[in-house]
Order: sequence, then C-alpha cells, then structure tokens
Amino acid sequence: MKKILKKYRKFQLSLSPQQNLLYGFSIYAIIGWFLLCLPIVQKQAVSALDSLFIATSAISTTGLVTVSIFDTYNGFGQFIVMLLFQIGGIGYMTFTSFILLSKKSDLTHWHQRILNAEFTMPKGFQIKDFLKSVIIFTVTIEILGALCFYIAFTNAGVEHNFAIWSSIYHSVSAFCTAGFGLYNDSFEQFAGNTAINTIISVLAICGSLGFIVVTDFWNRLSGKTKRVTYTTKIILGAMTLLLTMGTVMIYFFEPSVAQLGENKLMASFFQAMTALTTVGFNTIPLGGFSLAILLVVIFLMYVGASPSGTGGGMKTTTLTALIAIMWNRIRNNKRITFLGKSIPLERLYVATSVFMLYASVIFVSTFLLAMSEDFPLHQILFETTSAIGTVGLSTGITGDLTSWGKMVLIIVMFIGRLGLLTFGLAILARRNKLTKRKKEEDLAL
Amino acid sequence: MKKILKKYRKFQLSLSPQQNLLYGFSIYAIIGWFLLCLPIVQKQAVSALDSLFIATSAISTTGLVTVSIFDTYNGFGQFIVMLLFQIGGIGYMTFTSFILLSKKSDLTHWHQRILNAEFTMPKGFQIKDFLKSVIIFTVTIEILGALCFYIAFTNAGVEHNFAIWSSIYHSVSAFCTAGFGLYNDSFEQFAGNTAINTIISVLAICGSLGFIVVTDFWNRLSGKTKRVTYTTKIILGAMTLLLTMGTVMIYFFEPSVAQLGENKLMASFFQAMTALTTVGFNTIPLGGFSLAILLVVIFLMYVGASPSGTGGGMKTTTLTALIAIMWNRIRNNKRITFLGKSIPLERLYVATSVFMLYASVIFVSTFLLAMSEDFPLHQILFETTSAIGTVGLSTGITGDLTSWGKMVLIIVMFIGRLGLLTFGLAILARRNKLTKRKKEEDLAL
Ligand SMILES: [K+]
Ligand SMILES: [K+]
Repeated sequence: MKKILKKYRKFQLSLSPQQNLLYGFSIYAIIGWFLLCLPIVQKQAVSALDSLFIATSAISTTGLVTVSIFDTYNGFGQFIVMLLFQIGGIGYMTFTSFILLSKKSDLTHWHQRILNAEFTMPKGFQIKDFLKSVIIFTVTIEILGALCFYIAFTNAGVEHNFAIWSSIYHSVSAFCTAGFGLYNDSFEQFAGNTAINTIISVLAICGSLGFIVVTDFWNRLSGKTKRVTYTTKIILGAMTLLLTMGTVMIYFFEPSVAQLGENKLMASFFQAMTALTTVGFNTIPLGGFSLAILLVVIFLMYVGASPSGTGGGMKTTTLTALIAIMWNRIRNNKRITFLGKSIPLERLYVATSVFMLYASVIFVSTFLLAMSEDFPLHQILFETTSAIGTVGLSTGITGDLTSWGKMVLIIVMFIGRLGLLTFGLAILARRNKLTKRKKEEDLAL
Repeated sequence: MKKILKKYRKFQLSLSPQQNLLYGFSIYAIIGWFLLCLPIVQKQAVSALDSLFIATSAISTTGLVTVSIFDTYNGFGQFIVMLLFQIGGIGYMTFTSFILLSKKSDLTHWHQRILNAEFTMPKGFQIKDFLKSVIIFTVTIEILGALCFYIAFTNAGVEHNFAIWSSIYHSVSAFCTAGFGLYNDSFEQFAGNTAINTIISVLAICGSLGFIVVTDFWNRLSGKTKRVTYTTKIILGAMTLLLTMGTVMIYFFEPSVAQLGENKLMASFFQAMTALTTVGFNTIPLGGFSLAILLVVIFLMYVGASPSGTGGGMKTTTLTALIAIMWNRIRNNKRITFLGKSIPLERLYVATSVFMLYASVIFVSTFLLAMSEDFPLHQILFETTSAIGTVGLSTGITGDLTSWGKMVLIIVMFIGRLGLLTFGLAILARRNKLTKRKKEEDLAL
C-alpha cells in the first residue's frame, strides 16, 4: 500500500502544475459521479449520464442541471453536490493545501507552484498568507451568509428545519458562485424579497471578486500596505461599470421586467449580477427574455468574474487588457497603456489567447449542439456560454438536450472551470523552454 | 473657383491618410446615392433610403440589396452601380492615383502615404510598381473574365445582346468581389453549369487573393526576386486550408446540397469560396441551410479574404497571427513564432485589435437589429457578418428589414469596406505620438 502511494506521489511530482490541476479536478468529478450514482443518495432513479452531468456541473460550480436536485437526490445526495461545488469553488488545490496545513506539515515548493498556476497572481503575493486568507474568508462569509439566509427564509415563511439546511446550502452555493439551489424555480418565488436578493448578491460578489482583492484589502486595512494594487482597482472598476451597464440595459429594454413594478430595478440588477458573477441564480425566467437582452446577458456571462475568485468566464481583467490593446492601436500609440500604467507584453498575449480560446470553444460547442439539437441559435449559444463561463443560467433547454448534447456540455463545463489556458497548457505545454531565437518576419494584416 | 480648389487641396493635405480614405469613400457614396436617386436611371420608383443602401452596398462591394437591381434600375443605373463597385473594389485611392498617373504627373509623397494606409503592405514594396500591377492586372483579368462569361452565357442560352452586358457586369462584379448580379436568384439557375462556376471562382479568388500576392508572383516569374514572401505563403496556405475545410463541411453535413447529385461537390466548393473570398454570389439558396452549416459560413465570412485584395473580412493573415499567439501561449513559448518565423509585436497587436473590433461591431449591430427586427438570431447574425465582411450573402431578410435596420447595415457595410482599424484611426488617432514612457504595471488575468 505504501509502495503504491509512493509511486503515485512520484507520478504527481512528474506532472506540471497545470496537469496536476487537470487530474485533480477529474478525480473529484469521478468520485462525485460514483457517489451520485449510488441508489441510497437518490429519491428517484436517475441515469448515469445525468449523474455525471450533475457531478461535473457541481465540481465546475456551473449549476446547469438536467434533473431537479431537490426531486432527485435526498439529503445525503444534496450534501455530496454541496461538497463538490465547495471544492470546485475554492479550488481543489486550496482544499488539498488546507488538509496539509491542518496536519502542521509545511507547504512544499511543489504545492506553491500549483497554487500559482490556479490563481494567477501578480508578483509579491505570499502564497501562505494568501491561503490563510482564503480559508478564513470563505468560512467566515459562508457562516454569516447562512445566518442571514436563515432569518430571511424563516421570515419568508419557510419551515424551520428545511430553512436550516436551505440556508447552509444556498450560502455555500452563492459564495462559490455555484448557482445550485433546492428550489426548482431557482429564486423566482423570492423575486420581490429584498433581503434574499441582497444576501445572494453580497455573497456572489464577495466570492467572484476574488481572493486577490480580499487579501489586498485585508493588507490595506491592517496597515501592511499603503494602497490597493493596480489589479484590484481594475477589477473593482470593471465590475462596477459592467454591473451598471447590465442593470440599465435590462431595466430599460427588457419587456418582461416591466410588470414587476417597484421591484423592477432590483430584478434588473439581480439578473446582471447573476450573469457577471457567474453565480447563475435567477429571479425572472430567462426563457421569456427578449433576444436583444439575452445577447447582453450572453456578453456578461462571456466576460464573467475576476481572476482568483470562485467565478468563471474570461475575467474582467482580460476584457480590460483587450480594450487597452484596441484603444491604444486606434490612438496610434506604440505601447499598450491603461489608466496611466503600461501593461506587460506577456499579459497582453495571455489576454488575446484567453479571449480566442473562449471564442473557439463557444463556436465549436455551438456548432456541435446545432448538429445534435433542435433548438434555435439563441438558446444554444446561451447554453454554451453559460457552460463555458460556469454560470448555470439557462433558457430552459438543459433537461431536454440529447445525450450527445449533454456530453458536449459536460466537457465544456469542465474546461470552463479549469480555465482554458490551464487546460491547454496541461495538454500541450512543452517542458523544455529553450528555443533558438528566430528571425523576425513581417506579416501584412 | 480656383481658390476653392486650392482651399480644398489644403484641407486634404491637413488630413491623415485614414481620414482621407474616410472622406473619399463618403464622397463616392454620396455621389452614387445622388445619381441612383435620379428618375432617369430607374425602371420603377425606389425610396431614397433604398438608393442609399444600394450605393453604399456597391461602393463597399458588399452586394446586399433591398431591391432587385435588374427590376429597379435601367442600363444606365446598372452602369452606375457597376462603376461604384469597380471604384470600391480596387480602392478609391488606386482610382485617383490612376487618374493622376494618366495625366503624367507623378505620385506625390502624400498619395503614397494614403496608398500605404489602404493596402497594408510589408516593407520593401515599391508603391509605383505596385500600382501599375494593380491596374494592368485588374483590366486584364476583367476583360478575360468578360470574354469567358460571354461564351459561357451564350452556351447556356442567354440572348446575345444581354449576354454582352451581363458578361461585363458580372466579370467586374466577381473580380471586385462585389456580388452584384443581374439575376434575381444570384447564380442559382447556373448551379450545375461548370463553366460559369469556374469563371466566378477564378475571378473572385484572383481578386480576393490581393495585389500583394500578384505583385509577388509577378516579381518571382519575371526573375526580379528569387522566392515569394512569407506573407504570400501564409495567404495561400490559409486560403487553401479554409476552402478545403469549408467545402468538406458543406459537402458532408449540409442536407440541402444532398439532392444535387453529381453537382454536389461543385456546389459545396462554390458556397465555401463565395463566403471566404467575400464575393457573395450563391448557387444554392442560403435560407434553406441548416443552422450548423450557417455557422460555418458565418465563420468563413468573418475570416474573409486577404489583405490588399478586393475582398473584406478580418483577413486570413489576422486569423493566422491570432492562432500563432494562441498556440505559442499554450505551448508556453515566450516569443510568438509561426512556421519557423517570429512575428513582430506590432502586427500581433494589430491582429488582436482587428479581431476585437470586428467582434464588437458584429455584437453591437446584432444587438441593434435584435431590437428593431423580428427575425431569429441566426438570420440577424448572418446578415450582420455578411455586411461587415462585405460579403453580400443573405438568408433572404434584407428586403424585409425596417428602415432602422437598413440604416444599421448601411453603416456596418461602410465600416466594413474602409476597414475597422482604418475607420478607428481616421476618427481617433492622435497626430502627436510623443508620449512619456510609463511604468510597467502587472495585471493579473
Ligand atoms: K454558477
Ligand atoms: K461581396
């Protein structure tokens, strides 16, 4: 037994950080799938494919479901799903490192490298401090969230015992931007409940803002640093702008929110927030949205959350870098600057690559679903973007997909959580980086 | 009078090359619009908006039409349309320079700068040689094309007098990748005619390959240079690959070509060719295409032709540069290389900017059409991509658009022909490029 463990350890060490993440997430997904297939966790029989879909959706914190979680799985099954999206949300490496830390053994250099790959961070961040912040922050927020949820749910007339479970489940789900719920209509019945709307929004924004921002603020508040980093400013600025833009668009141009009266603004904000943070709960059925506003929601889902957070998407910082490239080209500047700072070359390539990879996966996945499914383009595109951004919003077609379509989305969700660049690097990166400098050659565009 | 001309000349000289192109195209579009509004060029009354649409579609060599050219305009009107797309096709600056050259006056430095902006070329190209090649090449090919068309049309039973006009018109239209035709079903009645399919394909590929490739080959054949440039190799390689891919996809996955029997391969190739070269003729009605294959056609239209050619789109070289960035990132290389050559930084930024600008315009235009029109997403997206890529293919909704929708497409076609980066530079570029070097700042992605 010890020999096998030793061999496994050796195998692990031979992998690149990205490959480790790939294998780690795969193993959690497979264990989750196996557990969800056991009849003792099910209220009613469910196919193996649907269980794989739910397991992948949970570990990737997407929240797309082909079957109702509440009607299909009992308390134990629901707990497994929650465990999966908790792991997925704070990252499997953070989780493993937490176990290691609690054993009082130190973080090895190898683990640090993997963590660095998982949370792309600016230089100068201390991994160990960072990790401590992650754990403290997650547990604190989730407990606070659950308490607030409990008060709000019981006030809304939810039965006491169910309210306890529901509070914990939804608090973890919202913070991990998983979007898994115990209600079959997501939060549509609570569309007018200000307390519940606020709790979800705060949890999802905290989770999706990312641990960089949290650590940064923590260092600022505790006096360790004098001001917040450039990355934090960009993240907060971009998120505020996008949330405002989304809310305004939905408020003024979406006919289906018009009949909500005084709750119109809250509902508009919630739908913009749910897409951008990639939490994926909804208070208005998206199937009734107009085409134009569905495109806005697709855009928000494509952009997604912030780096190092629990959310998905190509990230607000990537969008910022791309806008910086575009703007500086049009202005005929030689260097790429944004808000008075020059952005390093490497980051600009990463931004272009991430954007292109997302676009490619969405195109291929939409093409494959167009072949296998009988739904119009806007529903297929919405579902695909929701899966790659690990959002979990749907116009309502998830349950009606063919087996082929479900398999496509399983792969897309998995890639979405791992991050496209990480996925690519895991499979294709060369270990040997020594290459001869090649002659520059001009290419007309 | 002389004073006004002198003042206009001074004004022209004060503009940047990009601004000159913008004003030039605008003036041609407005003159064309005015002429097409005259009752003496019309067979039947047509609204001013439709005339503006046709004029813009012609100068931009798009070929989208809200009214039938043959049923609406008489021979004189058809001639104006042809003149517009001839001007648009070989570029308004080439045209102006041609007039200048024929006056035996020399090309000024100022004109050279504008030509450089219009045809983005690798260093080392001589503008004057280049221009001579353009004129010789265009006239030769168009005359040859017309002769071949005449034989093919009369063989197909087209009446002699109409065949002469039709041959000239379609030869110019195909070479300029304009896609304007005198038949209301484009070339659907000739779907099985090998000769006509071949003539259009050769003309469109020659036009869209671009004058860089032609000059390059000319220099190679005449012994001036020993081998073709890197750009030429990339252009030919990318075009061959994309054409093959498109043909294979349509051949195997498009149900509506299945009933064509022995003509299936030719029809599949023609539809891929028409999208990629952005000529925009079709032999099969696109309204009947399946969703999956429409997405493939949209992709081909988005990529488009080659730089310095008569075609539109973001260009095959841009796609190549983007794939190079993506591939080198995934392989973890520090420098961006492709086929053994390192691509300069500046070109990579241009590629990213062009891709992003195209994506932005398509998104905004699709959003606006989703607000004003009552068509499903795939038809709107197809129409928008066709307009920005100056392709002219349509699923058949152009004539049924609202006035608002027509105005959106007019702007999109115009921007599409001018080139997005040129358009942006014309409006926003700063003349003063002296900026202080700013401190590099890291941005997590
Ligand atoms: K989610
Ligand atoms: K065209």
